[in-house]
Amino acid sequence: MEGNAKTITVGLFGLGTVGTGVVKVLEKRSGLIRNRLGYDVRLKTICVRNLDRAREVNTAKYKVTTNSEHILNDPEINVVVEAMGGIEPARSYIKEALEKGKHVVTANKALISKHGQELFELAAKNGVNLAFEASVCSSIPIIKGIRESFVANSISSISGIVNGTTNFILTKMTSEGRSYESALEEAQQKGFAEADPSFDVGGKDAAQKIAILAMLAFNTAVDPDTVYTEGIQDVTAEDIRFAGNWGYVIKLIALAKKADGNGEGIDMRVHPMLIAKKHPLASVEGELNAVYLNGDLVDGQMFYGKGAGQLPTASAVISDVIDVMKSVAVVRNFNSLPLIDINDLEFSYYLKIPVIDRPGVLYRIAKILATNGISVAELLQPGGKESVPLIIKTHRAKERMMRHAFNELNKLAVVKKGAVMIRIQD
Amino acid sequence: MEGNAKTITVGLFGLGTVGTGVVKVLEKRSGLIRNRLGYDVRLKTICVRNLDRAREVNTAKYKVTTNSEHILNDPEINVVVEAMGGIEPARSYIKEALEKGKHVVTANKALISKHGQELFELAAKNGVNLAFEASVCSSIPIIKGIRESFVANSISSISGIVNGTTNFILTKMTSEGRSYESALEEAQQKGFAEADPSFDVGGKDAAQKIAILAMLAFNTAVDPDTVYTEGIQDVTAEDIRFAGNWGYVIKLIALAKKADGNGEGIDMRVHPMLIAKKHPLASVEGELNAVYLNGDLVDGQMFYGKGAGQLPTASAVISDVIDVMKSVAVVRNFNSLPLIDINDLEFSYYLKIPVIDRPGVLYRIAKILATNGISVAELLQPGGKESVPLIIKTHRAKERMMRHAFNELNKLAVVKKGAVMIRIQD
Repeated sequence: MEGNAKTITVGLFGLGTVGTGVVKVLEKRSGLIRNRLGYDVRLKTICVRNLDRAREVNTAKYKVTTNSEHILNDPEINVVVEAMGGIEPARSYIKEALEKGKHVVTANKALISKHGQELFELAAKNGVNLAFEASVCSSIPIIKGIRESFVANSISSISGIVNGTTNFILTKMTSEGRSYESALEEAQQKGFAEADPSFDVGGKDAAQKIAILAMLAFNTAVDPDTVYTEGIQDVTAEDIRFAGNWGYVIKLIALAKKADGNGEGIDMRVHPMLIAKKHPLASVEGELNAVYLNGDLVDGQMFYGKGAGQLPTASAVISDVIDVMKSVAVVRNFNSLPLIDINDLEFSYYLKIPVIDRPGVLYRIAKILATNGISVAELLQPGGKESVPLIIKTHRAKERMMRHAFNELNKLAVVKKGAVMIRIQD
Repeated sequence: MEGNAKTITVGLFGLGTVGTGVVKVLEKRSGLIRNRLGYDVRLKTICVRNLDRAREVNTAKYKVTTNSEHILNDPEINVVVEAMGGIEPARSYIKEALEKGKHVVTANKALISKHGQELFELAAKNGVNLAFEASVCSSIPIIKGIRESFVANSISSISGIVNGTTNFILTKMTSEGRSYESALEEAQQKGFAEADPSFDVGGKDAAQKIAILAMLAFNTAVDPDTVYTEGIQDVTAEDIRFAGNWGYVIKLIALAKKADGNGEGIDMRVHPMLIAKKHPLASVEGELNAVYLNGDLVDGQMFYGKGAGQLPTASAVISDVIDVMKSVAVVRNFNSLPLIDINDLEFSYYLKIPVIDRPGVLYRIAKILATNGISVAELLQPGGKESVPLIIKTHRAKERMMRHAFNELNKLAVVKKGAVMIRIQD
């Protein structure tokens, strides 16, 4: 088998964190890959924006250029790795590569979540492959899992902790009772959060990832900007403590689920949730990620590991570089399932209502809940303080009714600012 | 893309639990697979031992035969699925299929763990593929993970809960304080344990699975019969309770690990272990399985899910049927790393020593430990009973010294029968 190694000649766009990781791993591991699989993977050309920038890796062995045509018009290059990020010019380069019969590997979640369908259709038309494992949770092989391992399954739901920044912050708040602000600061110091953390803490990053997973599982294109998204900015250490007393942890969950019975829609959303401590997602801590899915043949399956970082991402990219040389199918036969309005869904809820301690307060709150058809499952009124929060766990109720009740509650004179409503996953 | 479906014509050996699952899933999901991947998977021929046996599935659409040549000599059949189990005649059929240029998919862990190298070499020689995802933890895609997703990694260790029977029993003993015998009985009633459970509870099943995983991760053939194996028969609810008080759960762990620094060996074993509750494997409950691995690029990764059952196994087989049509590499370039003698390894230990409550007992025990170089980390002597067990957690020590000390302890007149020694994984 040594003699018949198949040669993969790679052109790389971008030499930032991911691109540099790809160079490092290829240098270190081409022997191993040849030995294990019989593929000879050779990086030939790197296209960068700026030739003069200092690089972490020695690029003397490669052709380094600012001209994309040096990759796109090189017939020897059969696999293009796009590691630039952002929509343009990544999208144009990928389209041109596919049209020229080159396989493409990308780690670009913004692009795939927004323009996946267009790119997959182009790949299919040109008989080439487009792989993107690194775009969701980097090294966790959830995309391969859905596309290959569970291909014979009808998948009913996917839920995950897909953002390391928010999970790090929530874990710190849980284990050390820290405030959101203080935990965020530590995340920034440790490199788990950006200087402007809004993309992560607001849930947008998770929305892009769940849009990609839903596309694969349900063959449907969903614009990530239309996914219902709540961030973790308003979660407090106090909420986490109360949730803990009732057997829950609070996690930022990204979820995509087929409608139960009633029609063809997809329930897709990103928001903090109370997760029962027994659920496998509850024990995913720190910057780690995990994705849990339900297939009708395999039941619940979870993948757990590092969801970001230079080397984990490069590991996934290299795996894809080899995969595209096989007949990996592109996503095909898209349908467009409607998103289900979150107002039409049912949850049980954790409510924290800071109230002025005065006779009749509980009566007024209970009345609002009752008139909206919401019944109380558990209630806790920690005493002693001037401002007493009322902690309520409800039975299942329609989101629309709960929102209506929550609005009314907030209008009561006895209810102070800072009321909290978090959905529960038992 | 609808027009150019590639046809996979399958011949199936065996119509027991797994074979029947394969028939069911193919009937139900060939449309889905065609739609998702463009492969037309068609089951043509089923070879069984006994034509007269009643079947769970209607086989009128297939050619059912007792003659293996109806599959092996049919040029139209390009993929052979072996679902008979056992070494012979499965091994001969697979060899003949490979020699005739057919890809092979098998769920047979006994065969792959014992004769994998021979079969892979034969597959390579004939330019065909041999896939076996279902042989380890059925639907959990750990083999694809090692072979494909983490192919650029140097894997340092794999450890897992790979046997559902023992995990079900230990979970029952943990959550309900039940005895081993009573938990085993429930496992048998629920179909999680065989009438003769010794293959599972003694750790042999786990040894075969870890031998397969080690073969993939380290490119080495290990005879599963040479793997150090201890079962769970001697674990008591009392040990589980004491371990719990110190922050551990007891799990049957199968493990394969590259030697740290000193040489080329592999540390491979199956035995009960105390696992820190924080470790992701600790929360794997009931009949579920999970495999945790460490790769140098991806760090710790875990796969979790159902490790047995008709449909999960069939799901993995069907995934493989499609995979073998691509250029999935066979395992190649075998080396033969020596197994490290467990006596040369170091662990910390949980010891339970039932003693007669008499002055000087602790002194005599402490002296034996000290002369063998074993130091005590924690000690608990629950009082009040006539026969008092002494519970000790040691610092790390060589297995050889611990065994020597444990033998000496058991010879003391003040030590009663039933002393326990379990290794700890922090």
